[in-house]
Amino acid sequence: MRLLGLEVRSVEAGRAHLQTRVRAEHLNIHANAHGGFLYSLADAAFALASNSHGVAAVALSSHIEYFKAVRQGDTLEAIASEENRGRRTATYRIEIRRGDELVALFTGTVYRMSPEP
Amino acid sequence: MRLLGLEVRSVEAGRAHLQTRVRAEHLNIHANAHGGFLYSLADAAFALASNSHGVAAVALSSHIEYFKAVRQGDTLEAIASEENRGRRTATYRIEIRRGDELVALFTGTVYRMSPEP
Amino acid sequence: MRLLGLEVRSVEAGRAHLQTRVRAEHLNIHANAHGGFLYSLADAAFALASNSHGVAAVALSSHIEYFKAVRQGDTLEAIASEENRGRRTATYRIEIRRGDELVALFTGTVYRMSPEP
Amino acid sequence: MRLLGLEVRSVEAGRAHLQTRVRAEHLNIHANAHGGFLYSLADAAFALASNSHGVAAVALSSHIEYFKAVRQGDTLEAIASEENRGRRTATYRIEIRRGDELVALFTGTVYRMSPEP
Repeated sequence: MRLLGLEVRSVEAGRAHLQTRVRAEHLNIHANAHGGFLYSLADAAFALASNSHGVAAVALSSHIEYFKAVRQGDTLEAIASEENRGRRTATYRIEIRRGDELVALFTGTVYRMSPEP
Repeated sequence: MRLLGLEVRSVEAGRAHLQTRVRAEHLNIHANAHGGFLYSLADAAFALASNSHGVAAVALSSHIEYFKAVRQGDTLEAIASEENRGRRTATYRIEIRRGDELVALFTGTVYRMSPEP
Repeated sequence: MRLLGLEVRSVEAGRAHLQTRVRAEHLNIHANAHGGFLYSLADAAFALASNSHGVAAVALSSHIEYFKAVRQGDTLEAIASEENRGRRTATYRIEIRRGDELVALFTGTVYRMSPEP
Repeated sequence: MRLLGLEVRSVEAGRAHLQTRVRAEHLNIHANAHGGFLYSLADAAFALASNSHGVAAVALSSHIEYFKAVRQGDTLEAIASEENRGRRTATYRIEIRRGDELVALFTGTVYRMSPEP
């Protein structure tokens, strides 16, 4: 998270909120933020939200849709919420926002290692 | 790609092959490689393969399934191949391999900016 | 849609709302509704919502996460809303609900054939 | 499967092969096969392949990418193979083919109910 300049705004049960600013080293040859950068931002929020219940959670799968080009200097937020939490798996929605705009949408599913008693 | 220690082994029409070694800074709190690290490795191969035809390609969406835990010191390869190439969109399969093992599977779709004449 | 017993509750710009009741022929060998049935319900709402702007839209990709088992006699709703609408592509979220419960979550992306003038 | 006219060509450990012919009732308003029809064809192959090991498997998630328009009278095959099989989850690739052409690509992940002893 330091490598990517991510700042944690809040973590609650099933939720997380991160913020970052896009720097030159996060850009691809088209001068847009790398998909890998946006993914990693969302993935960090996903990890915090999915591990927020005191049960170790490991990612099974995720997908991301890219909507808007992101430029150097943009401030981005990643907002994670819980779509579903079952005994063994749980699914999270992570919005990547630039102010009011939805820049990318990430959906991730975890396997929960030790079910709640 | 330097940030992630990625080495390009080959790029051909619709194909790319990268290699890297997992370092301490790529690990999460469970001592496994971050999802964001594996994603970025696959995403780099995806970008090279999808831009290999002389037409600018931007990612629309991708998904990744995680199969095996990856540890510090593991050597990983990302092998990208073309599933489909249409006039406006194209889809790529990227295998992340540790020797013979399939460690993760990435599927990505691009929008092609200027169709071939 | 007749084959699946789907009833359209509403269609508006970027939105659609369908309802159905699970019948015996929609069940798999575990006596749960087939994935294909839930998918088709969501897909119908996706098609209506994505074609609601007067621009022909064809599906590029979709994914679905299954959360709850669905049984014969259950009443299901599919509620489609627009996550993003660009010039050439658009993405929709379709919730499959049984009352207050989120039973499955579908995300679909279309290619828009004739961009708005 | 009868509703969709699916014919099972083979089922082996981790694999399945189905065939069907597209009929008028499978078409959408653009005279192409419904996404839900292609999905259901792939999903049936996915279910057969993932349940082929004597362990009940239930779908967690899937995604499908659509490559080619499919017309009435086309003969389609669904060919399922195993990407990964872990103790608790397994992932399958299902190609929908029309002769040599890849018409759509489905990837599905199951949860395995009773792990092998």
